[in-house]
Amino acid sequence: MNNASEAEISTERSAYTQSKEPGPYTVPGFRQYTANLGVRDASDDFLCIVSEGDVRSDGVFTQSHFAGPSVLICRRHVGANPRALVAISKNANVGNGPPGLDDANALVAAAARELALPPSAFFLASTGVIGRRYPIDKMLAGMKGFGARLGQADFGAAARAIMTTDAFAKVSKRRAGAATIVGIAKGVGMIEPNMATLFAFFFTDAAIESDALRRTFRSTIDRTFNSLSIDTDTSTSDTALIFANGLAGAVAPSPSARSLDEVALELTQMIAIDGEGATKIIEVRVHGASDDVSAKIVAKAIVNSPLVKTAVHGADPNWGRILMAIGKCRDVRVDPDRVSIAFGDERVYPSFDRPVDLARVTRIMDAAKVVVKVDLGIANGAATVWGCDLSDGYIAINSSYST
Amino acid sequence: MNNASEAEISTERSAYTQSKEPGPYTVPGFRQYTANLGVRDASDDFLCIVSEGDVRSDGVFTQSHFAGPSVLICRRHVGANPRALVAISKNANVGNGPPGLDDANALVAAAARELALPPSAFFLASTGVIGRRYPIDKMLAGMKGFGARLGQADFGAAARAIMTTDAFAKVSKRRAGAATIVGIAKGVGMIEPNMATLFAFFFTDAAIESDALRRTFRSTIDRTFNSLSIDTDTSTSDTALIFANGLAGAVAPSPSARSLDEVALELTQMIAIDGEGATKIIEVRVHGASDDVSAKIVAKAIVNSPLVKTAVHGADPNWGRILMAIGKCRDVRVDPDRVSIAFGDERVYPSFDRPVDLARVTRIMDAAKVVVKVDLGIANGAATVWGCDLSDGYIAINSSYST
Repeated sequence: MNNASEAEISTERSAYTQSKEPGPYTVPGFRQYTANLGVRDASDDFLCIVSEGDVRSDGVFTQSHFAGPSVLICRRHVGANPRALVAISKNANVGNGPPGLDDANALVAAAARELALPPSAFFLASTGVIGRRYPIDKMLAGMKGFGARLGQADFGAAARAIMTTDAFAKVSKRRAGAATIVGIAKGVGMIEPNMATLFAFFFTDAAIESDALRRTFRSTIDRTFNSLSIDTDTSTSDTALIFANGLAGAVAPSPSARSLDEVALELTQMIAIDGEGATKIIEVRVHGASDDVSAKIVAKAIVNSPLVKTAVHGADPNWGRILMAIGKCRDVRVDPDRVSIAFGDERVYPSFDRPVDLARVTRIMDAAKVVVKVDLGIANGAATVWGCDLSDGYIAINSSYST
Repeated sequence: MNNASEAEISTERSAYTQSKEPGPYTVPGFRQYTANLGVRDASDDFLCIVSEGDVRSDGVFTQSHFAGPSVLICRRHVGANPRALVAISKNANVGNGPPGLDDANALVAAAARELALPPSAFFLASTGVIGRRYPIDKMLAGMKGFGARLGQADFGAAARAIMTTDAFAKVSKRRAGAATIVGIAKGVGMIEPNMATLFAFFFTDAAIESDALRRTFRSTIDRTFNSLSIDTDTSTSDTALIFANGLAGAVAPSPSARSLDEVALELTQMIAIDGEGATKIIEVRVHGASDDVSAKIVAKAIVNSPLVKTAVHGADPNWGRILMAIGKCRDVRVDPDRVSIAFGDERVYPSFDRPVDLARVTRIMDAAKVVVKVDLGIANGAATVWGCDLSDGYIAINSSYST
C-alpha cells in the first residue's frame, strides 16, 4: 500500500530513536544504582539517582484525581529541592488505599536510611499495573545495603532500568556552555499490559537558581511533553523532574534553555515514535489562531482524532478528516473561509479553486514523520504538538488480558 | 480468549439490531420516494419523504465549524416547519466552497418544483466524502418526474436507502396512544471510506404543538444520540429531524415522550452495535456526581478512552483504566475516597479491602453489552452514555485509501 519500502521506513524511524549528541550519557556529581527487587519479573525495576551535593530541583506531575502515593509524596517534597530520585517500574501502586501510601512511605524511609538523607530529599516515581500491592517485604530486603553500591551516573543504563515495553531506551544529551544536560524518559510502555505512564527525568551540572529553573522547566515541559498525545489517556503516575547540581557553574540562560528544549523535544519524539503500535510520528503545526491556547486545542483535536490517526497510518490522503477535526473545536474561533490546510508543503484545503495532488500527499504521508500544517488565518496564536498513528498493533497490545 | 462462543455473541448482538415492535414501519400521511441518481455507484442514494399535509417539525444539527450547505439550508428552514426531507448519500458536499452551496440550492429547488412546494418546506441532508462536488447535472436529470412517483412511506426501505456501510438498516417503532412513532437512522457508516455521519429521522402522526415538540425532541436527542460516541469525532453533517403530522390527534404528552425516547434509544444502541469494527455495546452509567453535566463528562471520558475500549474488546478485567479515565476529568469534582466502580454488579473499586472476582468480571465483559457503573458518591448528578469497543476492524476500515 505504501510507496516507501519497509526498509526505508525503518531507517527513517531510527533517526527518531537516537540522541543527535553521542554518549557517554553522564553528568558530573550524580551517582546511581539500578537493581531487580522482584516487583514482577527478573528485569531491573529499581533505579536510584542521587546528587552528591545540594541541587536545585523541580517537578511536574499528573493532574489525575487518582494520582498515586508516589505523586503525592513528590508534591509534598518538591518545594525542598530534593536531590534524590527512586523510580519503581512494573507496579504503579495506585488505587491501593491507605496500605498503598504506607508502602510508598516505607520505600522512601528505607532509601533515606541507605543514603543518610532525610525523606524530604527524595522524589518517588512508580509505573505499572494499578490496584495491586507492592511485594513490599521483598523490595525492602532487596534495598538493604544499596547505599554502599552507588556508581557514577550512567543515564543510558538508567533509561534502560525504567523501560517497560518501550522498544528502546530513551536518552538525550546537549551541551550548554560548560554544562551538560541529559534527559531520560520512558513510555508509552505497558507493564502487563496496563496503561502508559510517562516519566521524563533531566539532570544537569549547570548552576541555575530555583526560580529560573522552575520557569524554564515548566515552559519546556509545556511545549514538549505536554504537547504530546499518544491516545488521549492520562496516566495516574506521569512525572517529570529536573535536577541541577551547579558543578559546571552558571551558564547563559538562553542557550541553556534552548539545550533543555532540544533534549525534551528529542525525548518527546522518541516517545511518539515508540507509541503503542506506532509506525509514524504526526507533527501538527497550527498558526494564525486567535491565541496560543486556541492553537493548541485545534492541534490536539487533529493529532488525537482516531480518524486522522488511522488515515496517517494508511497514508490515506483523506484531508476531509483534518477539516472535521478543526470543525469540532467549538470553543475556538474558526472562520472556515480563512482556514488553509497542508500536508508538508502540499495545500489540500481550500481546494475547490484548484486540484490537490493526492499522489503527492500520499507520498508525504508515507514518511516516518508526517507534518500537518493549519493556518486559521485569524491572528498570531501558534502551537505545535506531536502524536503517532493508530494501528492494529495498538489494538493487539491493549485488548489482551491483564491477568 | 472469550468465554462466550462466537454463535452466542452473534445471537446476543442481533438483539440490538431489531426494533422490539414489529413492522410494518409506516405512519399515515407520509409519502416517499427512493432512487439511484448515480452519486457514486448503483445503490440508492436519494430519499425524499414528504407529509401530505402541514406538519410540526424540528431539527438539531452538527455544531461543526465546517457544517456543509445541507446543514446551513436546514438551519435556515427549521423555524418554518418544513414538511419534506431530501437525503443524499455517498457525498457530503462539504468543503466545496460557493459552488457546493449552489449545488445544494439547485437540489432543493428541483425537489420543490417536483412537489409544488416552496424551497422553505425542505430539509436537506447529505452524507459521504468531503471535498468532492456532486455530479449535479446527472442528479437533477435523475430527479425529473419523481414527484409523480411517490408511494406510501415504507420506513424500512427509507432506512435502507440512507445506509452506507451500515451492516443493517436501522428502524424502530413504538405506539403512543392512537399514534405511531417511527425513527430511522444511519451511521456509523463509511462512504469510501470517509467519516461517520449520523442521521436520525423521526415521523409520527401524533398531534404535538411546536413548543412541546421542540422541548421533547431536544431532550430526547440529548439523552440518546448526544450520549453516544463511537470514536470522539464529530461529523460535519450530523442531522436529526422530527415530523409530526397530527393525523392521529393529540396524545398524552408523557406516553408519547416515553415512546419517542424508546425509539431513539433503540436506534442509538443499533448505531453503537454497528459502530466501525464494533463487536460490543458499552453502556456507562455514572451517578452520585455533583450535577448531571459532570456525570456526563465522566461517563464520556470512560466510553471514549481507547484503553477502556480495547480492554472491553478483549474482555480484559483491567479496571484500573476506568479509574484512569475518571481521574483525567480535571474539571469535575471527584473525591477518590468516595468513588466506587462496578462491571455489571461486580464491584472492582475500591478493592483493597476485599478481593475482586476477576474471572466473573471477564464473563461480564464477554457479553454483547458491557455495563460499567460508577458512583462518585458526592451528590445526585447522573448520566448514561453509549459507545462501542475498539477493534482491529476499526483500523482496517479507516486506514485504507479514500482515493
